Amino acid sequence: MTAASSWVLSLSCPDRPGIVHAVTGVLAEHDGNITESQQFGDPDTGLFFMRVEFASAAPLAELEAAVAGIAGRFEMTWNLDVAGRRMRTIVMVSKTAHCVNDLLFRERAKTLPVDIVGVVGNHETLRELAEFYGKPFHHIPVTADTKAEAEAALLALVEELDAELVVLARYMQILSPELSDALRGRIINIHHSFLPSFKGARPYFQAHDRGVKLIGATAHYVTSDLDEGPIIEQDVERVDHTFTPEALTAIGADVERRALARAVRWHAEHRVLLDGHRTIVFK
Amino acid sequence: MTAASSWVLSLSCPDRPGIVHAVTGVLAEHDGNITESQQFGDPDTGLFFMRVEFASAAPLAELEAAVAGIAGRFEMTWNLDVAGRRMRTIVMVSKTAHCVNDLLFRERAKTLPVDIVGVVGNHETLRELAEFYGKPFHHIPVTADTKAEAEAALLALVEELDAELVVLARYMQILSPELSDALRGRIINIHHSFLPSFKGARPYFQAHDRGVKLIGATAHYVTSDLDEGPIIEQDVERVDHTFTPEALTAIGADVERRALARAVRWHAEHRVLLDGHRTIVFK
Amino acid sequence: MTAASSWVLSLSCPDRPGIVHAVTGVLAEHDGNITESQQFGDPDTGLFFMRVEFASAAPLAELEAAVAGIAGRFEMTWNLDVAGRRMRTIVMVSKTAHCVNDLLFRERAKTLPVDIVGVVGNHETLRELAEFYGKPFHHIPVTADTKAEAEAALLALVEELDAELVVLARYMQILSPELSDALRGRIINIHHSFLPSFKGARPYFQAHDRGVKLIGATAHYVTSDLDEGPIIEQDVERVDHTFTPEALTAIGADVERRALARAVRWHAEHRVLLDGHRTIVFK
Amino acid sequence: MTAASSWVLSLSCPDRPGIVHAVTGVLAEHDGNITESQQFGDPDTGLFFMRVEFASAAPLAELEAAVAGIAGRFEMTWNLDVAGRRMRTIVMVSKTAHCVNDLLFRERAKTLPVDIVGVVGNHETLRELAEFYGKPFHHIPVTADTKAEAEAALLALVEELDAELVVLARYMQILSPELSDALRGRIINIHHSFLPSFKGARPYFQAHDRGVKLIGATAHYVTSDLDEGPIIEQDVERVDHTFTPEALTAIGADVERRALARAVRWHAEHRVLLDGHRTIVFK
Repeated sequence: MTAASSWVLSLSCPDRPGIVHAVTGVLAEHDGNITESQQFGDPDTGLFFMRVEFASAAPLAELEAAVAGIAGRFEMTWNLDVAGRRMRTIVMVSKTAHCVNDLLFRERAKTLPVDIVGVVGNHETLRELAEFYGKPFHHIPVTADTKAEAEAALLALVEELDAELVVLARYMQILSPELSDALRGRIINIHHSFLPSFKGARPYFQAHDRGVKLIGATAHYVTSDLDEGPIIEQDVERVDHTFTPEALTAIGADVERRALARAVRWHAEHRVLLDGHRTIVFK
Repeated sequence: MTAASSWVLSLSCPDRPGIVHAVTGVLAEHDGNITESQQFGDPDTGLFFMRVEFASAAPLAELEAAVAGIAGRFEMTWNLDVAGRRMRTIVMVSKTAHCVNDLLFRERAKTLPVDIVGVVGNHETLRELAEFYGKPFHHIPVTADTKAEAEAALLALVEELDAELVVLARYMQILSPELSDALRGRIINIHHSFLPSFKGARPYFQAHDRGVKLIGATAHYVTSDLDEGPIIEQDVERVDHTFTPEALTAIGADVERRALARAVRWHAEHRVLLDGHRTIVFK
Repeated sequence: MTAASSWVLSLSCPDRPGIVHAVTGVLAEHDGNITESQQFGDPDTGLFFMRVEFASAAPLAELEAAVAGIAGRFEMTWNLDVAGRRMRTIVMVSKTAHCVNDLLFRERAKTLPVDIVGVVGNHETLRELAEFYGKPFHHIPVTADTKAEAEAALLALVEELDAELVVLARYMQILSPELSDALRGRIINIHHSFLPSFKGARPYFQAHDRGVKLIGATAHYVTSDLDEGPIIEQDVERVDHTFTPEALTAIGADVERRALARAVRWHAEHRVLLDGHRTIVFK
Repeated sequence: MTAASSWVLSLSCPDRPGIVHAVTGVLAEHDGNITESQQFGDPDTGLFFMRVEFASAAPLAELEAAVAGIAGRFEMTWNLDVAGRRMRTIVMVSKTAHCVNDLLFRERAKTLPVDIVGVVGNHETLRELAEFYGKPFHHIPVTADTKAEAEAALLALVEELDAELVVLARYMQILSPELSDALRGRIINIHHSFLPSFKGARPYFQAHDRGVKLIGATAHYVTSDLDEGPIIEQDVERVDHTFTPEALTAIGADVERRALARAVRWHAEHRVLLDGHRTIVFK
């Protein structure tokens, strides 16, 4: 006899009648009690999305078999997980600390359901910070000549550490299309701008020159199409003419860490589903 | 042969396994296709809440009978409506125009699914505005002596106009507990403060005296417990020391009309469900 | 004997020591009492900006002569006005009402210091609304062939009505560089996007396709450089995957009217100063 | 020969003509060039406030003497400091890390102009964090019996470390009126609520029970009047019915650290002036 556990099931499939009924039928057969659920049908793509948290005493294998039993009929892409399980995550950094510091702090404070299994830097700068939080730091330097090797080393590390998620926390290297594809749907970047604006380098200097009144940041999945990956979260903060480019950069850092932390939490809680080049976020 | 129509079903009931399965079973039997749905189980109150939009060619009576067929078993409170149907609404005013002007404008712009069937004022001030928008204006003056009659006249008007919703758009009269009860769950007020603070009169003067840095407003259902009705929406705007009480009042007007318009829209779309003295808002 | 009046002086000039001392010396000589003032020196452009509200019983001509007496020495661009005076304003529209309705309502509510002396439309659609607020409506149709005449008619109207400010309240015509130059610094547009993003047509459809999580708008001065005029104000509102392009458009309308009303108020209060292609906004 | 340095002068005094002229006269005599300045006269209290940043090659003593030369005549309270100088600060904590972690991180990132000269805790919990950032940690336990001694020890430490500012970063002890008075105007608290609401303990449980839609925090100066000290900054974040009290607490932590960091920065930059029980914040 097992105590009731809490589960989260997320899925997408071509939209048609009967999906929710079939899914909840599976839950009902296992005495599943729904605590939170959301569904959405996108008329543009013809896809249907569902996320359901439920309590059930049934074991994982039994639940998985039951879901698999209906998944084929509906052509479902689906995922079943223990609700609240901490997702094994690698954080990648260069020299800038604000995003990784925020993720490490939130993990320790138990407000972010991730298990940061390693920090990877192309510089040594942030080793001390990672190690203060008890995280192994891996130095993988990157030059134009060694980029392929560096990416291979990263992929090897992802496998070795059994990482489910890679977070680019102001990692200032552009990934190859091959690596982006290999990690598709499980690699998140924070873009230091309110996309689609100011895509290039030094966006806060561009923002200052243009005299914008709001500073934004965008957390998105990485794809081989640079800066065009599906957007998970965006946020802004108000600025004015007294802000120097340096002050805009400092404000930007606040917005970046906030947007990134939300995106990572929603991903780790299986709240983000891919809908073509957009996302469905069941907050 | 009928073309497929779009429906919205909202319900609450004691939480237990099988609710969503039963509901979606009813939909599946009528070839219903879910386009948007949300569920939530509140562990504090033990209640379960659901809102589902779906397309189905079945006629209203048939769908109602089918839902009724399962409602008893689950002790459901439920409502089935045509999605997007404009809710018959009475707006009550005194002399201040910003909220009613906003509601009238949004109705005409078709961004608020209400049919404002009348504007009631305890002063004549806003007759001209109401009539510009083609709305009958009813003058029901209120004095300490005539309060009971005035409330009876309002209730009679609600029945005569078959109004489903009453919106207090800066109506500066306190309703009797009897009237609040009679209209329970279908009367919305905008409170000129960020509740629970500054409950009394002249909140913007209080706010100025206290030197607050944010001005807020609260849209809530009216209950006999003054200013303590279930909160539907709150919003704020940033202010600073240069704002006089008059400037705070002007900013407050912006926040009020924004919060009220959202609350009315969500109510009219059956997105707000009562959970004790709290609300569930399926945005 | 005159009662003390309230004045606002705004100015910009090349930055160097002694400016504020000289200006406040002029005020002191006329028993001027400063109630609110701000100064800013921009290290990028080498320009200095000042706005001061003060009370003084001196007549306008005397104050003007006194300011003129120091303006030459500092190469000042300056403006002296009665504080709170309502600026004579023409609002230009096409068919969309939300911005002009908001401006008209705020003028009547006395929360916007403008005197709307006329509404100009290239369509007749909004005549009724303008006339309800007691404003003369001028229909100036525009076609590819008549554009030059239409702009000449507008300029003639600006002169005839002695208009100080022209507001493009969703006026869906691109102005010629000549007209933009002729009205430089006194013509404000609301851009239906968070510039510099989504510059083209149908920005809310672009935003929906891109799956953005925030919808923004930008109020800016019109220049001959399309969509690149100095930004006065920007604002955003949060959206999610459930928003259709139509819903994004409705939210965008809210953001637009809010940003435009702020920009118009700040301009009318002489709070906005031009600093190259940026603005200084002394809020 | 000294290079030009950057200074910040802040002052308040009874309002009357000639103040700014006199102050800028002092600056002009020392070839001072104003880079940013703001003034405000409060009609309620009859007080005038000014903050000016300027560049001047004159030595501190000379500038101080010059300001002192006019201060008496205008009954000024004034402060002259090197612009950007890092203010010597003690941070007080209990067991909760989010606020102190944020302050320590921002100090190291050089985005907060403070020099944290010590962290004081009534528990040992946060010693490790403080020491990671190279800060001496002082354990001053407090019980009902030892409160007077503990406060004496704190005051001794403030003197010994020459601390200019004390920040209560979720320090869960109520200070005595005597200590509050001794540190008046240089001790900042973060209140875990949007004051004036939810003043008591466990505000996030109160907020959850009341079903609020926004969670707020308030940074304020500490006075002997508990929770009624002058407000420096407030902020909010949007929540909904799915947030448990624990989730509200986590969101609240984000809002708290954000509001506190802003209040500390503005105080350290001499942007906050006291106006009775309100503040003037020259952002």
